[in-house]
Amino acid sequence: MKHRVLASSLAVTLTVAGAANAQETFEMTSAFGKNLPILGTAGVAFTEKINGISESVEFEHFDPGELVATLEALDAVSNGSVDAAYTTSGYWQGKITSASLFAAVPFGPEAGEFLGWMFYDDGLTLFQRMYDEAGYNVHVIPCGIIAPETSGWFKNEINGIEDLEGLNMRFFGLGAEVMQRLGVSTSLLAGGDIFPALERGAIDATEFSMPRIDARLGFHNIAKYNYFPGWHQPATMFELLVNKDRWDDLDERSQKQIEVACMANITDNYAEGEATNYEAMVDNTENNGVIIKQWDAEMLDLFESTWNEVAAELAAEDPYFAEVWADLQEYREGYDIWNRNIYLPRPRN
Amino acid sequence: MKHRVLASSLAVTLTVAGAANAQETFEMTSAFGKNLPILGTAGVAFTEKINGISESVEFEHFDPGELVATLEALDAVSNGSVDAAYTTSGYWQGKITSASLFAAVPFGPEAGEFLGWMFYDDGLTLFQRMYDEAGYNVHVIPCGIIAPETSGWFKNEINGIEDLEGLNMRFFGLGAEVMQRLGVSTSLLAGGDIFPALERGAIDATEFSMPRIDARLGFHNIAKYNYFPGWHQPATMFELLVNKDRWDDLDERSQKQIEVACMANITDNYAEGEATNYEAMVDNTENNGVIIKQWDAEMLDLFESTWNEVAAELAAEDPYFAEVWADLQEYREGYDIWNRNIYLPRPRN
Repeated sequence: MKHRVLASSLAVTLTVAGAANAQETFEMTSAFGKNLPILGTAGVAFTEKINGISESVEFEHFDPGELVATLEALDAVSNGSVDAAYTTSGYWQGKITSASLFAAVPFGPEAGEFLGWMFYDDGLTLFQRMYDEAGYNVHVIPCGIIAPETSGWFKNEINGIEDLEGLNMRFFGLGAEVMQRLGVSTSLLAGGDIFPALERGAIDATEFSMPRIDARLGFHNIAKYNYFPGWHQPATMFELLVNKDRWDDLDERSQKQIEVACMANITDNYAEGEATNYEAMVDNTENNGVIIKQWDAEMLDLFESTWNEVAAELAAEDPYFAEVWADLQEYREGYDIWNRNIYLPRPRN
Repeated sequence: MKHRVLASSLAVTLTVAGAANAQETFEMTSAFGKNLPILGTAGVAFTEKINGISESVEFEHFDPGELVATLEALDAVSNGSVDAAYTTSGYWQGKITSASLFAAVPFGPEAGEFLGWMFYDDGLTLFQRMYDEAGYNVHVIPCGIIAPETSGWFKNEINGIEDLEGLNMRFFGLGAEVMQRLGVSTSLLAGGDIFPALERGAIDATEFSMPRIDARLGFHNIAKYNYFPGWHQPATMFELLVNKDRWDDLDERSQKQIEVACMANITDNYAEGEATNYEAMVDNTENNGVIIKQWDAEMLDLFESTWNEVAAELAAEDPYFAEVWADLQEYREGYDIWNRNIYLPRPRN
C-alpha cells in the first residue's frame, strides 16, 4: 500500500500549466428525448459518467430539436455548429449506404457478437473510415447498445405476406428496405410523430423500439397486435459523434475519459434494456388488451431471404457497403461454431 | 460551443487544496495471470482504463501469488494487506454460501440478463450486503463478464450418467455441487495446476474456462472430448474488491472513476470473449484432434434437475443464499416473457 504525495510546489506548477488547457465544454444533441426510457436515458447517463470522472471535459445534454433536428445531427457535428451528438448511424442511411451496418443488421449479430466485431475485430476501424471516406469531419465512438426491439405494432393480425402488402408503416434502418420489398410503404417518422400518424390513419402500423419505450409512446392504444422476435434489429448500437477538430484538440487523458465513459455506457444501456422491458409486456397483455404474436417460421424465412437479396443489391451498388458487409460476414462465419455450441437453447413460446 | 477558462489564480487555489489528497496507489492482485487471454487480460485492461482516466488514483496489477494466493485475496483485501483484487466471488464459495450466485449460476442468467439484475434490479445491493453481513471490510464493484464457458474436457466420451460416476474432475463454483451429486469427485484446482494433474492422472477430466483460455493451458493434449453448452456457467461475472477503509477515504470523483472504469471493463471483457474464442475451436477440431460434443437433452435435464435440488438445499441451509436466490428467481420469472419473445431462435448443431 503506497500513497504518493506530490510536493505542493510541483502540484501548483502542474496545474498552472494545466489551466491553460481549461475545461472544454461540449454541447451534445441527443437523437432521443431525455424522458424516453432506455434510448433517451442513455444519452443523459453518458453525460453523467463523463462529467463525473473528468475535470477537463464537460458534456451538456440537449433534447432533439433544441440545437438541431435528429436527422441533421451528423452534418451539424461535422461542420461544428454542434460539438457532439448521441445518436445512431441508422439515421444516416439516406446519406451513407453502409451506415446502418454499424447500427442494426437484420438477422445480424446480437449484442455480444456485435461488440466483439466492434472492439476485437474490424468494426470500429471500418466505422471511423466510413465517416472519413464520406467526407464527414467527425470522430465516432460506440456509446450504447440495446437488445432486440419488437418488430412491429399492427392493427390487424398478419397471417401471411398478403396481409403486409399495401400497408403504410413506420420503419427504421435496413429492415425498412426488407418491408418495402414485401409491398409495405415505409416512412421513417421520429418517435414523437408516430402516435399522431397512427391515430389519424396516416400509417397502419409501426415499429419503433422496445416494449417499455413503445409503451411510453402509446402505440398499444391503437394497434393491438405486437409482433416478435426482433429480426430487423437483433441489437442496435448507438454512437457518440464528436466534431473532429475539437476531438483532435483534446489531450490524451480527456480523449480516454470520453472513450471509457462511452464503453461503460454500453454496459449500462444494455443492462437497462434487459431489466426493464418485461414489465411493459406484462402490462400490455394484462391491462392494455395487447396480443403478443410470434412471426411463424415461414414469415421469418421470408424476411430473411428478402434481407439477403437486399444486402446483395446494396453491396453491388456501393463498394464500401460491400467491404463492410464482407468483413462482417467473414466474422460471423467464424463466430458461428461458437454460437452453435456454447449457448444453451432459448426457451420459446 | 463554449470554452470555460478557469482563472489561473482559482486553479492554483484548487490544486493546492487537491494536493493534500495526493495520488492514491492501489496494489491489485488478480486471480488470473496477465498472460491468460480474456480472464487475465481483463485485470490488466481495468488498470489501463483507470490509470488512463484518473490523475488521483493509480492501480498496479500483480499476478496471482505475487502478493497473495488467489484463494486468499478476499481476506487480504479485507484486512488491508492488499489494497484491491480483480477476482470472482465464485472463489469464496467455501467461505460464503451465497457467493457464487454473484459469479455464475448453473442454468442461470446469460450476460445481458445478469447485468440487468446487477445494475437495474437488486443484484448489486445484495452483492455488497453479502460481504458486509459476512464481516468482510471490502467494497465490491462488478468489473468483468464473460459469455459461457465450455462444460468440460474428458478423456472418454460421456454417454450417460454412468460414465460420470467415479470420475475425478476439476470443477468450479455451483456446478461442482451438481457434479458431486452425480457421483463425480470434484476439486477446485487453480489454472496452472490443472494440466499437470491431468497429465499424471490425478484427475480424469476438467472444466476451466473458454476454448481460447483452455487452449493456452493445453487440456486438448490429454483430454480430446470437449463438451458444450456451458450449462454450469451461462455467464461469469468478475469483481473488483477494494479495501473498504481505502475506498471510503477516496473523494467522490475518484470513486466514480473506478466505477466507470469497471463498467467499461465489462463491455471490453464480454467483447473479447465473444470475438476471440471461435478460432481456438476451429484449431482444436482441425489441428488438435479434439471432438466437440453437445450434451444431449437427457443429460441437460439431469444437470438442471440436479441443480434445482442443490439450490433448494443451499437455500434451506443458508438464509442469505435463500434471500438472494429468491430475488434472482423473481427477476428471472419476470424476464422470461421478454426472453421467450424478443430473441430469434439460436442456430444449433
